[in-house]
Amino acid sequence: MSSEKVAPGFRQRLLDASRKRGSKLILALDFSGPYEERLDNALRVLNATKEHLAAVKVNHHLLLPYGLHGIRGVISVCKEEGLPLIADLKINDIESTNLNIVDSLIDYGFDSVIANPFIGREEGLGRVIERVHSKNGGILFLVYMSHKGAEEGYSLRLEGGERLYRVFAHRAREWGADGVIVSAKSSDKIAETRQIVGERCLILSPGVGAQGGDAALGISAGADFVLVGRSITESRDPAKIAAGLKSS
Amino acid sequence: MSSEKVAPGFRQRLLDASRKRGSKLILALDFSGPYEERLDNALRVLNATKEHLAAVKVNHHLLLPYGLHGIRGVISVCKEEGLPLIADLKINDIESTNLNIVDSLIDYGFDSVIANPFIGREEGLGRVIERVHSKNGGILFLVYMSHKGAEEGYSLRLEGGERLYRVFAHRAREWGADGVIVSAKSSDKIAETRQIVGERCLILSPGVGAQGGDAALGISAGADFVLVGRSITESRDPAKIAAGLKSS
Repeated sequence: MSSEKVAPGFRQRLLDASRKRGSKLILALDFSGPYEERLDNALRVLNATKEHLAAVKVNHHLLLPYGLHGIRGVISVCKEEGLPLIADLKINDIESTNLNIVDSLIDYGFDSVIANPFIGREEGLGRVIERVHSKNGGILFLVYMSHKGAEEGYSLRLEGGERLYRVFAHRAREWGADGVIVSAKSSDKIAETRQIVGERCLILSPGVGAQGGDAALGISAGADFVLVGRSITESRDPAKIAAGLKSS
Repeated sequence: MSSEKVAPGFRQRLLDASRKRGSKLILALDFSGPYEERLDNALRVLNATKEHLAAVKVNHHLLLPYGLHGIRGVISVCKEEGLPLIADLKINDIESTNLNIVDSLIDYGFDSVIANPFIGREEGLGRVIERVHSKNGGILFLVYMSHKGAEEGYSLRLEGGERLYRVFAHRAREWGADGVIVSAKSSDKIAETRQIVGERCLILSPGVGAQGGDAALGISAGADFVLVGRSITESRDPAKIAAGLKSS
């Protein structure tokens, strides 16, 4: 046997982290309020809940005021704990900008990025997916979001009758996305998406808790992970809420 | 006459800045390369070109590594010069996150934000537009982008025959966007968009220079401003390029 090890890819790292802690819960580290308190709050909630998590998602709540450089402490805790880090920037820019973004994210220790497949493959996400994979990172596609207005975009019916979210699910499979985001409030769309993307593509489901979705329903409909933010970050007892959601 | 002054809104501030310097050029402060050099380069190019600009656009190239806090120097120069600042985050998230983003941007001195109307109005951009306007800021909608993959999203034909970019132009008008982004490489789409959005909604046109578009063509097709990045930021003589493009 060779002593050379191939580092596991993003998907495997996420599944390993999930198995290790018996958790299907991905914490969205979203905070409002004074900027100087957000980092402290993020570290407090992360440290209180880390044993219950499969991964951590960071959005503009932290990244916009502080940047990657400013949230190094949060990144370090995730690295030490083996918690994959997802950047929820919903990238939808031209190729050169998207490449700039994913290079920065991976340089600073992020494991994956969420992208909107609406932006297209040619001079959009094609080379971005290659770049992320060449750096052993992951890319997750938005397929159906958890707000009411998702109807006004993801549900649009194209000429020929297909709904746009189904086109996005096909893009995830064909372009080689590691996972997709499908609202926990739409059990039928989770099941539909699974049929299109197959078993190798992970389904992550947001919209649980503050947004009205039910974690257990999302998982029973076929999601691999639930994404939860405010129900935990705004709770008086984040650890308790996280523990209750970890294997729902 | 009352001595009370109503502060001009974003659209008026942009037109005033344009008139003052006789410029229809908006500089996209996009830099690659070592993170520690990007801020210095941004300040160098901004100071070299500021007399030729109507406004400045900032994207993740600067914001992701440093955050709003880290780019205070760039923001200060723009404030001192009366150059409106546009955050090109192409926001396409749920309402609570979008509100968090625009609050941060305006707190730190940005004047406007670019959004993708794909995300919808209900629990998407509806309250975000109100919030931005209540703070005297502006919001710009993506209508047609400058990369080839724009065909795979913005050009999708919906049931009934309408192209998505035309739906987005209608949304800009109906939802009260202050301006729209339409690629300088698509003169016909600039003209089409003008017909839909009317005269009060500004048209900003990217894709000039490094991306192959022609500034003069964009303006002659009806755009109010051209957005130029790499042709200036990667030039040996940014001032000369900017001077040449300012009133193309």
